[in-house]
Amino acid sequence: MNSQPSHLSLVPFVSVDNMMKLVNRIGVAEAIADIAAEIEKDYRRWPEFDKTERVPAHSEEGVIELMPTSDGETYSFKYVNGHPANMARGYQTVTAFGLLARVDTGYPILFSEMTILTALRTAAMSVVAAKYLAPKGARTMAIIGNGAQCEFQALAFHKVLGIETVRLFDVDPTATEKAARNLANSGLNVVSCSSSEDAVAGADIITTCTADKQYATILTDNMVGAGQHINAIGGDCPGKTELHKDILLRSDIFVEYPPQTRIEGEIQQLPSDHPVTELWKVIRGEEPGRTSERQITLFDSVGFATEDFSALRYIHSRLSELSLFDELDMIADPDDPRDLFGMIKRAEKADQPS
Amino acid sequence: MNSQPSHLSLVPFVSVDNMMKLVNRIGVAEAIADIAAEIEKDYRRWPEFDKTERVPAHSEEGVIELMPTSDGETYSFKYVNGHPANMARGYQTVTAFGLLARVDTGYPILFSEMTILTALRTAAMSVVAAKYLAPKGARTMAIIGNGAQCEFQALAFHKVLGIETVRLFDVDPTATEKAARNLANSGLNVVSCSSSEDAVAGADIITTCTADKQYATILTDNMVGAGQHINAIGGDCPGKTELHKDILLRSDIFVEYPPQTRIEGEIQQLPSDHPVTELWKVIRGEEPGRTSERQITLFDSVGFATEDFSALRYIHSRLSELSLFDELDMIADPDDPRDLFGMIKRAEKADQPS
Repeated sequence: MNSQPSHLSLVPFVSVDNMMKLVNRIGVAEAIADIAAEIEKDYRRWPEFDKTERVPAHSEEGVIELMPTSDGETYSFKYVNGHPANMARGYQTVTAFGLLARVDTGYPILFSEMTILTALRTAAMSVVAAKYLAPKGARTMAIIGNGAQCEFQALAFHKVLGIETVRLFDVDPTATEKAARNLANSGLNVVSCSSSEDAVAGADIITTCTADKQYATILTDNMVGAGQHINAIGGDCPGKTELHKDILLRSDIFVEYPPQTRIEGEIQQLPSDHPVTELWKVIRGEEPGRTSERQITLFDSVGFATEDFSALRYIHSRLSELSLFDELDMIADPDDPRDLFGMIKRAEKADQPS
Repeated sequence: MNSQPSHLSLVPFVSVDNMMKLVNRIGVAEAIADIAAEIEKDYRRWPEFDKTERVPAHSEEGVIELMPTSDGETYSFKYVNGHPANMARGYQTVTAFGLLARVDTGYPILFSEMTILTALRTAAMSVVAAKYLAPKGARTMAIIGNGAQCEFQALAFHKVLGIETVRLFDVDPTATEKAARNLANSGLNVVSCSSSEDAVAGADIITTCTADKQYATILTDNMVGAGQHINAIGGDCPGKTELHKDILLRSDIFVEYPPQTRIEGEIQQLPSDHPVTELWKVIRGEEPGRTSERQITLFDSVGFATEDFSALRYIHSRLSELSLFDELDMIADPDDPRDLFGMIKRAEKADQPS
């Protein structure tokens, strides 16, 4: 008796190992640029998506979140944790995996690691926002916080926006050394800096991507000058911010999904009616992005489910060409859908030595 | 360069094939009885769980839901779809998979198919409720709806509650034939009936588990007599019910998690303040269950996240003993948690022919 799974029951799975191969074969910067294009395309059809705040399970140590969305044809969700104390234990602060499914049948079509993919899509989202918000001709970016996200930001801005110089700073000099080493042959001019003040000097764009789970002041008001674009990545959960409130008050603030950003972003420091602009409206030309050379623009990024959707769809689109996946027998698929029990009993016969 | 995943990155995965083997080696009825014991234990500590309604994505064709919960130490979620039109296409109406994770690190410890496991835990939940609500000495159960859930219900009530006779009815006689055939050597006396009225005659317990996504009247008021226990499984999403409202008005109604049952259960037909009893209070002895021989008790079951938690924990507890799992490389685990980029680049070297 054949108990082999049928094609319906097999879901393509992209492991960490295969995701690394896939990204390397495409190229890290190219993959980010491709995902940025997908994100931008999906932001243009923003109203088509079911949107909801992420569903969190908070604990003293961190948070586990589910981030679902759907465009009516395809459903996605991501599981992601955020545990700041993990790093000291040799664990990742943020790990993730996710899934695509068909809305019409509910059947999964892709299961994937998303720790790496989230790093790519976060950088991709940053360049999509910067395309509309950064000053024209920006060539220098400061990156404060040189942890797991740093190199992806640097490569993304180099590839998509033509950034030539990155000025790195981290409170831990070994993090800066690591990032500088990883970016050595990237084509970027990499400058390791001794302070945040040093790093932001002359920068057209300031990216903050630190990982402390607390209210921190990575940037103080005097460090931000007219015309700069701030790409704020690290303020991404309740109680975690990076910018001094006065910077927010001088900036035009752009966000992904306001109900989520009000809870998690830098703007949790501001009254809940403080004006913000939804980035999708800027991308669709319904609201202005940058309007003057002296304006300070702030992308208060927290990461939103549609960006994971875009990234997963991109991976799915490259699957058959690159053949870097396994097949998981994760959907029970009896010949007669009403006969789940019979399927189990037939498997018993197949399991016994003949 | 070694790009093999470390132990932290590997998550045990129970495929459909391994779940069938696992259930067969334990025995279907035994596995359900074990899971029932776990569910009952977890219901006794109900206040320890984070509880929330499931997170649905509705479409014309069906629904995809995420069901998270946590007891503060372990987190679980289940992905489950419900697509009534799937059966006609040769797909399962309900498929599911799920995950356990450690709350302190956010790292997954088990990924599992749950189509089969949900079938087991649903039957397990039914017998836990019936233990407190069914009339003493119940020996005969009617099962209306002889689809995928039917045999699990029959075996569970036989094993745990001593039911000796099941009276089967389905609008599709081939479904009844299938169930009768599957239960042939179960030790149960199986009676195939020609109508719902015929099936419920003399039954101490009536189980309804039909699958139509609509308001249906599987049981009319005249079919339910004094002293019976109704185990209503199939009314489990908005717009889907099985019982005539008059039956509800004559019954004492017991539910899992009221905010979810008010939306999805039989009681969606009733005003939102209609009195119901939470089953966990009955199990803890804080509220009465069955109090008289003539009382009609109704377990308005919709399935709740803590039951999946209990079932996943049970599977996890049997993993090492039965060795029926694969290991999935689904968590990116660089030696230096801040060096995700470096891990990807080192994998590139390993991927190149030497």
